[in-house]
Amino acid sequence: MSPTPAGAPPCVRLHLVVAYTGARFHGWQLQAGDRTVQGVVEKALATLAGRPVRAIGSGRTDAGVHAVGQVVHADVPQTRAGLPWRRALNALLPDDVSVVQAGPAPPGFHARFGAVSKTYAYSLWTEPEFVYPQRRPFVWACGPVDRQAMVLAAREFLGRRDFAAMQNTGTNVGSTVRTLESVAAWPGQTPFETVWRFTADGFLKQMVRNVMGCLVAVGKGKISPPDVRTLLSVGDRTRAPATAPARGLCLESVEYGDHEHGEAHSIFDEPAPDQGGCG
Amino acid sequence: MSPTPAGAPPCVRLHLVVAYTGARFHGWQLQAGDRTVQGVVEKALATLAGRPVRAIGSGRTDAGVHAVGQVVHADVPQTRAGLPWRRALNALLPDDVSVVQAGPAPPGFHARFGAVSKTYAYSLWTEPEFVYPQRRPFVWACGPVDRQAMVLAAREFLGRRDFAAMQNTGTNVGSTVRTLESVAAWPGQTPFETVWRFTADGFLKQMVRNVMGCLVAVGKGKISPPDVRTLLSVGDRTRAPATAPARGLCLESVEYGDHEHGEAHSIFDEPAPDQGGCG
Repeated sequence: MSPTPAGAPPCVRLHLVVAYTGARFHGWQLQAGDRTVQGVVEKALATLAGRPVRAIGSGRTDAGVHAVGQVVHADVPQTRAGLPWRRALNALLPDDVSVVQAGPAPPGFHARFGAVSKTYAYSLWTEPEFVYPQRRPFVWACGPVDRQAMVLAAREFLGRRDFAAMQNTGTNVGSTVRTLESVAAWPGQTPFETVWRFTADGFLKQMVRNVMGCLVAVGKGKISPPDVRTLLSVGDRTRAPATAPARGLCLESVEYGDHEHGEAHSIFDEPAPDQGGCG
Repeated sequence: MSPTPAGAPPCVRLHLVVAYTGARFHGWQLQAGDRTVQGVVEKALATLAGRPVRAIGSGRTDAGVHAVGQVVHADVPQTRAGLPWRRALNALLPDDVSVVQAGPAPPGFHARFGAVSKTYAYSLWTEPEFVYPQRRPFVWACGPVDRQAMVLAAREFLGRRDFAAMQNTGTNVGSTVRTLESVAAWPGQTPFETVWRFTADGFLKQMVRNVMGCLVAVGKGKISPPDVRTLLSVGDRTRAPATAPARGLCLESVEYGDHEHGEAHSIFDEPAPDQGGCG
């Protein structure tokens, strides 16, 4: 049970894992007048809770980006704690969102501040002349690339770096330093795909898509791995290759640390107020 | 080059492998007023050939059924033989169809009469409470099933059988005997899926979906493996479980025999006239 101010009804915090396809959403985050994942999840939660409920995600995803492992918490009235939340939410949610897990959150859990790392997957379709229609919504059909050159270039991003050149222009955050813990190319769902998987302690806005744009530019011989090093050290987004399309990107998982020892992490730059509907 | 009647322009026969998603099509086969895969493929062929072209598929697929390996032949004017057909067709085709291979057909090749077997995959999503939105268009979310019972029941279909009870009611074909060469359950694209793969020398209308409907009925304990044997021997479709949904089904591949020794096979009951636009 969450700590409850005097007068507010007692709440329990739910932990949700949410999957969605991004094509028909204006991203995760609530926006007046636009269909967002947070918006439809909060609507379903409110229906079941009988009151407004705030859904706090591990972070935003852009319009068009998919997820299979977005982590969310939400405080709901204790009187509804016993609901079969997963089944009930999925009965209300539209076809392009599904709750994969739902249950009580561990004590002190916070979907955003507790996240210690995230893993994104970016799918490249490298066959030049055709794309399976089944895979078109989930890949960037970038055509043939020199994978070995990309692997070399990817090493330039690995570790603790200033990713200023890899964030969306116009973004304003405190620090642009992040630690990319791993980046690797994996076999995809078909023989015509490669999945690039990125794990970091945090990602700047459009960081994966900008890194992917760089890697494909290397794979096509437009820039070299040393150029990538220069780009990063100069830190000027306007000199970097174009952002990769949203539809190739999927938030696969969010990792959490030890909830006994506090989970506020300095990697999050814009801690939004946690406005739950209760508690 | 195909044999050419006096007066008709010389033609070459193209061999195509076509992938499509079924949701927005009324199946493969041409139908006046309806959007069909054959219709859009013939339209693209005609644009490039400069004249009407007939596209002969290995067989029909129902509305909503997908394919990654539909095989097609088409006779096009010899003057256009040198076109980069795959690239050119894909530049014209809509997002839900793609030509995977295109090239000159072997001598005597016929997409329908030359087929010696076909392989279909049917994807079951067996997790009861959620479905990844990414997979929803490609699976039957049938919920939990007893896979071992289904494997036992599947054996009842294996080999040379009369599949009268597994064809769509109202169908009128000469023989309902087919040979199911293999049926097996495979891991799917996610841990929540099972793919049932069927290879036969031919399939009756909706045969895979009816067999799958039976297997899921067994998996849910509604009927037993011996009931399946009875159903087959009685041969009455009206007593069989409901047809599985189209969206779980995908035509994976079509296998061809030795083109040197003729390819007409008695397994095809309704040889449609091969009306090419030339030759």
